[in-house]
Amino acid sequence: MVEIDGDRLLRGLATLRSFGATGGGVVRTTFSDIDMAAREWLAEQMRAAGLDARIDGAGNVLGRSPNEGAGLLIGSHSDTQPRGGWLDGALGVMYGIEIAHAFLRHPDSKHLVVDAVAWSDEEGTYTSCLGSRSFVGALTDEDWSATSSAGESVAEAIERAGLNGRPPARFDPDRHRAYLEAHIEQGPHLEDRGLAIGVVTSIVGIRAVEIIFTGQQNHAGTTPMDRRRDAAVAMFEFGHRLQGAMASAAGPTSVWTSGVVHVEPGAQSIIPGRAVLGLQFRDPEDTTLDRMEAAARSLAAETDAAGTIGIEVVARRQPIRPTVMDPVLRGHLATAAEARRPGRWMEMSSAAGHDPMVLSHHLPCAMLFIPSIDGISHDFAEDSHPEDIVTGCQVLADAAVPILRSWETAPAV
Amino acid sequence: MVEIDGDRLLRGLATLRSFGATGGGVVRTTFSDIDMAAREWLAEQMRAAGLDARIDGAGNVLGRSPNEGAGLLIGSHSDTQPRGGWLDGALGVMYGIEIAHAFLRHPDSKHLVVDAVAWSDEEGTYTSCLGSRSFVGALTDEDWSATSSAGESVAEAIERAGLNGRPPARFDPDRHRAYLEAHIEQGPHLEDRGLAIGVVTSIVGIRAVEIIFTGQQNHAGTTPMDRRRDAAVAMFEFGHRLQGAMASAAGPTSVWTSGVVHVEPGAQSIIPGRAVLGLQFRDPEDTTLDRMEAAARSLAAETDAAGTIGIEVVARRQPIRPTVMDPVLRGHLATAAEARRPGRWMEMSSAAGHDPMVLSHHLPCAMLFIPSIDGISHDFAEDSHPEDIVTGCQVLADAAVPILRSWETAPAV
Repeated sequence: MVEIDGDRLLRGLATLRSFGATGGGVVRTTFSDIDMAAREWLAEQMRAAGLDARIDGAGNVLGRSPNEGAGLLIGSHSDTQPRGGWLDGALGVMYGIEIAHAFLRHPDSKHLVVDAVAWSDEEGTYTSCLGSRSFVGALTDEDWSATSSAGESVAEAIERAGLNGRPPARFDPDRHRAYLEAHIEQGPHLEDRGLAIGVVTSIVGIRAVEIIFTGQQNHAGTTPMDRRRDAAVAMFEFGHRLQGAMASAAGPTSVWTSGVVHVEPGAQSIIPGRAVLGLQFRDPEDTTLDRMEAAARSLAAETDAAGTIGIEVVARRQPIRPTVMDPVLRGHLATAAEARRPGRWMEMSSAAGHDPMVLSHHLPCAMLFIPSIDGISHDFAEDSHPEDIVTGCQVLADAAVPILRSWETAPAV
Repeated sequence: MVEIDGDRLLRGLATLRSFGATGGGVVRTTFSDIDMAAREWLAEQMRAAGLDARIDGAGNVLGRSPNEGAGLLIGSHSDTQPRGGWLDGALGVMYGIEIAHAFLRHPDSKHLVVDAVAWSDEEGTYTSCLGSRSFVGALTDEDWSATSSAGESVAEAIERAGLNGRPPARFDPDRHRAYLEAHIEQGPHLEDRGLAIGVVTSIVGIRAVEIIFTGQQNHAGTTPMDRRRDAAVAMFEFGHRLQGAMASAAGPTSVWTSGVVHVEPGAQSIIPGRAVLGLQFRDPEDTTLDRMEAAARSLAAETDAAGTIGIEVVARRQPIRPTVMDPVLRGHLATAAEARRPGRWMEMSSAAGHDPMVLSHHLPCAMLFIPSIDGISHDFAEDSHPEDIVTGCQVLADAAVPILRSWETAPAV
């Protein structure tokens, strides 16, 4: 067994946290000065680990093992939400560097190929999973002109960050035979059950629709109640019935959310003529997503037919299909987890999006979760226990060895 | 009987309509160049009627009869909503001018005192009922600094309009013994019943509250359904139950509206931590308004106690109490309506606000309504039939004669 250095890992995470530290959390949005300084520091850490490191033309920090042959890519993203936590992304990045570092110094593993990576803009300050999409050659012109809320485009940000003209690091199928990423769970399931490790089975699919209610705008004083076609009242009624309809269609881990709600024109003395109810729903199974979408659409059609308010359902985004993790890689993670923490791990889906949604179309991917305290993430209060942080890295390292060794005798996982 | 000149009235209304005519409607917001041009034209019309007319320091156009003694003030406002109809306000203004004109030319009435008025900014482009509040000396410093949506203050607008330094016309209790205003109904009740005239009993009181739902903002993917404290879902449930609660508390003409609805932070992937539901309600009776407010507050208290979402009810504005029209003036309007259109009039409350809400604290007021086609107002489609327009003016003129004559023998109505 190759033992990772837990103290070095925690010191590294603490230093990375200092780039953008704010009130217990971290503000290190993509291509900010702080983000670029952190990337320079990450490249140094990779070099200290023994890797050949550089920041590529999309802001990714790639650390390449001096060894040749089929290898594992391990990492995550180092950018944060506008008000982010200190572990989201950072954890997986430092795991990659620590595992590369430990492997290159242990006689049993020093010949193995572990490359480390810190992706750019997973959080979508400009456009989600910018770095991993660049890595697999999937960036479009639209992505390059995507803008931050401050109105700066990706192309402008890359020029400002001094990355213009640098070649993008690209996925090499002979080198990168699989990708592993560790992450905080961002939910309460592991902590609730007193477990140390989650082996991710899949990343949920996400669909979003807008339910649009069309009534008749009118004077809120002079229009009698029985003459009204009030889009807001129709929306309240629909929103109430929607909860039961979605619950009936949902699977055990499905979630649904109406985070965007508008009524128009939005004045106290005017009966709303139009209301828009956003509905986003997530599940690891496409069939469950189909059922949930059908439930929402059928409730809308039924309500549309029954009343005087027009109801239309429109897709709000391209659906994101569930991403299934590679079963062989998952098996290695499960074996390693059981060996280190017998009975204290579980299989689970990821309800949040991650770079493997992009990467898994090109190479086998797997993910490992560690517990989040109180299930909190994307918040300054985000945290995990140090022992869980160290355990997670060790389990990932333990799994990496048999994965890498399997390629010494077989052509692919 | 003094007969008004219906053709002259309709011609005058058509000319006034041309100031700001837009797509069937009128855009003549207070203190716009078009509004000021219309006020100059109104002053000329008042002079042509035989009145001594001027625009005062608040933009009101006052036309004073050359006769001395106790008189009637008749009029309305000549400003419009940002997308207004051609009759709202304009109708009552032209009635005042036509009645003054006709009375000064008829031997039975030429000695009577009828002053005409076109108030400024009843619609609240800057602040509601600006002109009538200036007339009764009720403007505060806050009113003078009230701004339009373009950010211009009342004081700046008055300077820009060239009205700076002009004295405001002020209410004189010896001169202005009563105020009469005619208006389109803005609702469907008269048309539904095939009636020609509405005699207004009172202007509804208006109350508005905000119902604020406080839950816990969280990640829309990783937070399980049974852990959520979703402010939007609580609002939908409340909005659904509110309709029944308000209907149970309401009187026969009560209305209630949720024209303003917000959820925060308002992102697809974030469970709303806060939601705000506006609730405005109107009724001619204070006791009914009390019952409606109690119903909303008790539903909120019950829901607050039952669940994990905090619910608070806060007053959104100073309540506007119902304004009762003067019973003696109402009696004269009813008598005149019955004489001209036997059986084709009714008593009714006004569900919209009007300048008498301000004026009635200082002098007796009454209002007369004519039918609105399809009940539409505050919209380019607003319209009334010409015969109804002429009938309304004649009924108001018919009522004015006995009111004015009553002051020749008695000290007050």
